[in-house]
Amino acid sequence: MTERIRNFLDKIPHDGPVLVVDLEAVRENYLTFSRTMPDTSIYYAVKANPAPEILSLLAELGSSFDCASVAEIEMVLAAGATADRISFGNTIKKEADIARAHALGVRLFAFDARAELEKIARAAPGGQVFCRILCDGEGAEWPLSRKFGCDPAMAEGLMEEAQNLGLEPLGLSFHVGSQQTDLAAWDRALATVGGLFRRLADKGIVLRLVNLGGGFPARYRRDVPAMEAYSQAIHDAIIAHFGNHPPKTIIEPGRAMVGNAGIIRSEVVLISRKDQSKTSEDNPRWVFLDIGKFGGLVECMDEAIRYPIRSRRDDDAMEPAIIAGPTCDSADVLYERNRYPLPLSLDIGDHILIEATGAYTSTYASVAFNGFAPLKSLVI
Amino acid sequence: MTERIRNFLDKIPHDGPVLVVDLEAVRENYLTFSRTMPDTSIYYAVKANPAPEILSLLAELGSSFDCASVAEIEMVLAAGATADRISFGNTIKKEADIARAHALGVRLFAFDARAELEKIARAAPGGQVFCRILCDGEGAEWPLSRKFGCDPAMAEGLMEEAQNLGLEPLGLSFHVGSQQTDLAAWDRALATVGGLFRRLADKGIVLRLVNLGGGFPARYRRDVPAMEAYSQAIHDAIIAHFGNHPPKTIIEPGRAMVGNAGIIRSEVVLISRKDQSKTSEDNPRWVFLDIGKFGGLVECMDEAIRYPIRSRRDDDAMEPAIIAGPTCDSADVLYERNRYPLPLSLDIGDHILIEATGAYTSTYASVAFNGFAPLKSLVI
Repeated sequence: MTERIRNFLDKIPHDGPVLVVDLEAVRENYLTFSRTMPDTSIYYAVKANPAPEILSLLAELGSSFDCASVAEIEMVLAAGATADRISFGNTIKKEADIARAHALGVRLFAFDARAELEKIARAAPGGQVFCRILCDGEGAEWPLSRKFGCDPAMAEGLMEEAQNLGLEPLGLSFHVGSQQTDLAAWDRALATVGGLFRRLADKGIVLRLVNLGGGFPARYRRDVPAMEAYSQAIHDAIIAHFGNHPPKTIIEPGRAMVGNAGIIRSEVVLISRKDQSKTSEDNPRWVFLDIGKFGGLVECMDEAIRYPIRSRRDDDAMEPAIIAGPTCDSADVLYERNRYPLPLSLDIGDHILIEATGAYTSTYASVAFNGFAPLKSLVI
Repeated sequence: MTERIRNFLDKIPHDGPVLVVDLEAVRENYLTFSRTMPDTSIYYAVKANPAPEILSLLAELGSSFDCASVAEIEMVLAAGATADRISFGNTIKKEADIARAHALGVRLFAFDARAELEKIARAAPGGQVFCRILCDGEGAEWPLSRKFGCDPAMAEGLMEEAQNLGLEPLGLSFHVGSQQTDLAAWDRALATVGGLFRRLADKGIVLRLVNLGGGFPARYRRDVPAMEAYSQAIHDAIIAHFGNHPPKTIIEPGRAMVGNAGIIRSEVVLISRKDQSKTSEDNPRWVFLDIGKFGGLVECMDEAIRYPIRSRRDDDAMEPAIIAGPTCDSADVLYERNRYPLPLSLDIGDHILIEATGAYTSTYASVAFNGFAPLKSLVI
């Protein structure tokens, strides 16, 4: 799938790290989602990678969009999607931004707190709202904290409040945590959501939407369940908890839409050991790249995400190494506790490919930390 | 010291978070360093805050500069300093960047590995080099990993090698760790450095420079030893380990030069609790700001640095709160384990001041994560 990127990279000179995203891979991911979850609307999580070419492709394919800010909403509109395909999915919004989104035609808003609901009622009167509930996040590689969502009982009261404020209480959302590989996570969340639907229906509030969030994993170094298995698990849970009256569902894939579609090429800047008197295990190789945590690989924080890393010398003898970035910041170490096998023949100036880096890299890069330019991004 | 910033902020509208740096505070910090350490050359660590106004002021005051990249070197030259006042202090440099620095007139280079020394010998022939040695970092709030530096015995061999490669083996450097409050840390490091000076002198290599690095703390919420105490501890350690032949010394303050000179103003976007049925301690307030880890406060990572946070309502009753940023990333939480006392009357739309944020904020901000613009920076 990424052969095209490799061929492309062979033709361009290296003057700093570069991310290349293959639109064909994005297209394939989109089509896999729509084929395996035909009854579910796809809202691409723009924050994963807002490159205009990606947004245009997805708009053309019929995707909807989950936006975190007014800037993202404007990018989606510029890419050719209409406002009715946009969800303002951030639960933390300034009232002025809600008003701007409303003025741009956006109708669908997320919330998880009474004060946010009040802002929406004032700034986007009559808008459709969905309430995010708290999920345990068990089984996710990048578990969510309690930052987003509220207790389900509180959500029940807030949906009544939404109605009282003149808003349309459309549904509920949850997020099982990023890179979620435990399929039962969706069942646990949908059991809670189903119960809330019934209790609210008893009060005359008929919800219509379940936002299943994201959490669909991209493949990094470990195998992950195929999309079909997710689709089946979600389908079974919907049947179990909603019976013959399934709600409209939407998903918000970000990482799973673009993660495997991108490759970062980086250059080895230095290879060293700290002590010449010791054996190699106590005295590991440090491999310093021209990209690090501040250049776009912030998801290596706590070594949570382990990207596949390749070089041309991977047939040579390997030895585990520590991998670090180029800045003068000692926190700019990518993998230290869990060392990476890298070829012993690896040399300064060699290129390495960091795969599955299409999501959460280009926009995470720092403006100019240590004077280094942000990650370049190309789409082919 | 920051009264000028408060007055300035009162006059400008809030359309997103802003960092304001007071040049008078930077000047005062510089003068304190030069008064308390008159025999030591000051190399400002540009990465802490490369605002052109700060670089121009320090150039005018006579400071030298520690640069992490060619871009930083170019900024320092543009600010009016000459190349002989620049140290290329990053131990991880591309050979092409060493050559560019050399072409710009830079003569002084850091290294900690044989391969780096070879690059310098090729790209900056005849250059002056100092070798960074590993320090334990004990007592620092943001301890350094083993990323920088090499074992002292290895440094000894590398300084001989430097001479053989036609470079000028000028001295040694170390870094005791950022926000170092244990004054004995400098004594331990200088004992090692003194020993290396003597062993190398016995081999005919007479070193002249000790780079004492940074680590001088800025005051956040806890009191830190006054600069005089640092100066005295370093002076005593130099006497103890070098006797009557003290080397030339340099320091590389970054945080201590600009940290307390800056204040970020942010707006409260949302205040909520996750559950309406529980008492307040189990059900803390979440206070969401329009700045977070990805907007410039990355040093809140692991809650390492606790900035003083003020509002106009600080005379009201206080309750500990969780503080989080505005992005859809669950890792974008500033303080959760260690909650912050904030006024119970704090309201959405209120401004809060995050003090002592002049260092490691503006350039750390992400390019556009979630579509949010990078931190604005103003210098007065």
